[in-house]
Amino acid sequence: MTLQDLLGIELPIIQAPMAGVQGSALAIAVSNAGGLGSLPCALLDVDGIRREIAAIRAQTSRPFNVNFFCHTEPELDAARDRVWRAALSPYFTELGIDADTIQAGPGRAPFNSDIADVIEESRPAVVSFHFGLPSSDLVARVRASGAKILSSATTVDEARWLEAHGVDAVIAQGLEAGGHRGVFLSDDLSTQTGTLALVPQVVAAVKVPVIAAGGIADRTGVAAAMALGAAGVQVGTAYLLCPEATTSPMHRAALASDRARVTAITNVFTGRPARAIVNRIVRELGPISHAAPAFPLAVPTVYALRAKAESLGREDFSPMWAGQNTSGCRAIPAADLTSELGSAGL
Amino acid sequence: MTLQDLLGIELPIIQAPMAGVQGSALAIAVSNAGGLGSLPCALLDVDGIRREIAAIRAQTSRPFNVNFFCHTEPELDAARDRVWRAALSPYFTELGIDADTIQAGPGRAPFNSDIADVIEESRPAVVSFHFGLPSSDLVARVRASGAKILSSATTVDEARWLEAHGVDAVIAQGLEAGGHRGVFLSDDLSTQTGTLALVPQVVAAVKVPVIAAGGIADRTGVAAAMALGAAGVQVGTAYLLCPEATTSPMHRAALASDRARVTAITNVFTGRPARAIVNRIVRELGPISHAAPAFPLAVPTVYALRAKAESLGREDFSPMWAGQNTSGCRAIPAADLTSELGSAGL
Repeated sequence: MTLQDLLGIELPIIQAPMAGVQGSALAIAVSNAGGLGSLPCALLDVDGIRREIAAIRAQTSRPFNVNFFCHTEPELDAARDRVWRAALSPYFTELGIDADTIQAGPGRAPFNSDIADVIEESRPAVVSFHFGLPSSDLVARVRASGAKILSSATTVDEARWLEAHGVDAVIAQGLEAGGHRGVFLSDDLSTQTGTLALVPQVVAAVKVPVIAAGGIADRTGVAAAMALGAAGVQVGTAYLLCPEATTSPMHRAALASDRARVTAITNVFTGRPARAIVNRIVRELGPISHAAPAFPLAVPTVYALRAKAESLGREDFSPMWAGQNTSGCRAIPAADLTSELGSAGL
Repeated sequence: MTLQDLLGIELPIIQAPMAGVQGSALAIAVSNAGGLGSLPCALLDVDGIRREIAAIRAQTSRPFNVNFFCHTEPELDAARDRVWRAALSPYFTELGIDADTIQAGPGRAPFNSDIADVIEESRPAVVSFHFGLPSSDLVARVRASGAKILSSATTVDEARWLEAHGVDAVIAQGLEAGGHRGVFLSDDLSTQTGTLALVPQVVAAVKVPVIAAGGIADRTGVAAAMALGAAGVQVGTAYLLCPEATTSPMHRAALASDRARVTAITNVFTGRPARAIVNRIVRELGPISHAAPAFPLAVPTVYALRAKAESLGREDFSPMWAGQNTSGCRAIPAADLTSELGSAGL
């Protein structure tokens, strides 16, 4: 079965869910163009998820994907929080922020039973996860809703694990990819490989369809992924300048500049490794900081710095997610980009 | 003009020069199979280069490539050397090595006037460089000898620089590649991108043919590289188990095991970033050590540790170069591997 048949789409193009830089509008445009639009839910509460799914349903009858993080919520570690706040303290001073007013604690919830209720009510065609899969009872509820289930593998071991736990397709996320690494079986970033190396090894290791992600920016990238045995591709960065994305003007300017050639996998924004354009906080504290608390406990403090700095027109603390290939970033409608990408895959 | 026409070869397959794990035998086998065999000269003196070129001439009439490092020789920095020896001192103690007997100083010379004499005498069809290009007068002598000149680019900027300095083709080295990174315009490893992201951007940036390198292990990888616009590929890791390679039994065993899935770009072996299988010294001092002296000044000390450890059957200090895709490593004749790789590229 082709990926198109499996997911009920026309083109083997999945728009990568990108929390913070897009909502329903981008998903709608991509699904209506024959690809699979994705709604990132990592930053939404249950009401927000319901509202965004309703918005999609109102504007397309095509399949779409609803995406969730499924990390284990960490215990608050007061000692580590103190170390992290100490590392950030010169920035608090510089920006005149009283750090004591910033509450510790997670800024985002993983997939849970309340969200499974929403899936059962709203029945999206596809549900995708990042950081592995939720507990087996939650996965069973999603499956019973009729949704096809996808998740990201960054290694051959993760691909095998996901197949054994019942995903319908594996997204092979090469290290070119922007945003959070899906890595979940290892803390060792030395296991993370480029897309060209990862995809054929995952294809050889699993029977389910493999979706290539990371560094694919145009139809030559799609054709290359298909040559490696992928059944389809997931593309994120190339959509960031589309008018339907909510990418900030600051982030758009960086993506359109030569600065976008220098990205790093960093944990300073959230506590988990994610690829972003190198800016001041990445340069000064990272890319990997051992002071950073467990995901997502780094978020509230960095968010406070970011908000204040952005109000002053500065991007020093803003996560400007990007993959390693921004050559496909253009300010064109997402439907046009989807059609162009899909023209190689058929 | 195709890459085959430019270099006078049948298949668009270049065997990557791999100092320390191969000599003339591998180059001969690949050239006789219609690819471009390569002789790495980084560890050879002038007499050794002459001898190896004579051996190739004796066994093939086909074009071959002679490869050189072209780094700037560093001044010995006594303070830094002391810091490095201090970092290694527990290992010296453990292995019973008197570190005072190890001479500081470079273990290898870059391309120079004496080597240019050899090129003028021996007239190889192709000369390739790593770490940029030698001085313009030396490049002019190589060009006047009739050789086509190749060098590696790890970024778009490096590709443009090499084209402006007159190379006949650019090798786009993605970060999946094993061995030394060719990077020469920046010390910032955040500029280094995966092959799938790098190749199309280099193809768009230069007019000369682009050779894709990094993570290509079989004919699907060759087909993918061609889909990205490459005129040919350079493959190294997949040749390491061929009988014509001089890869050590220890290194062969690691390449054939799951350990080969965990590699890192490390400077602990030579002072310059290079991808190798993660072993004890990489884990304990690296992957990137700020104590490591400038390339190639790290070599003599680590070599002493390596030699002693290997005599005890231990690989703790051995550079086991490998790219991120060892799935193509098989103990088959290099001619067969070359034909298989080439069957995708035509």
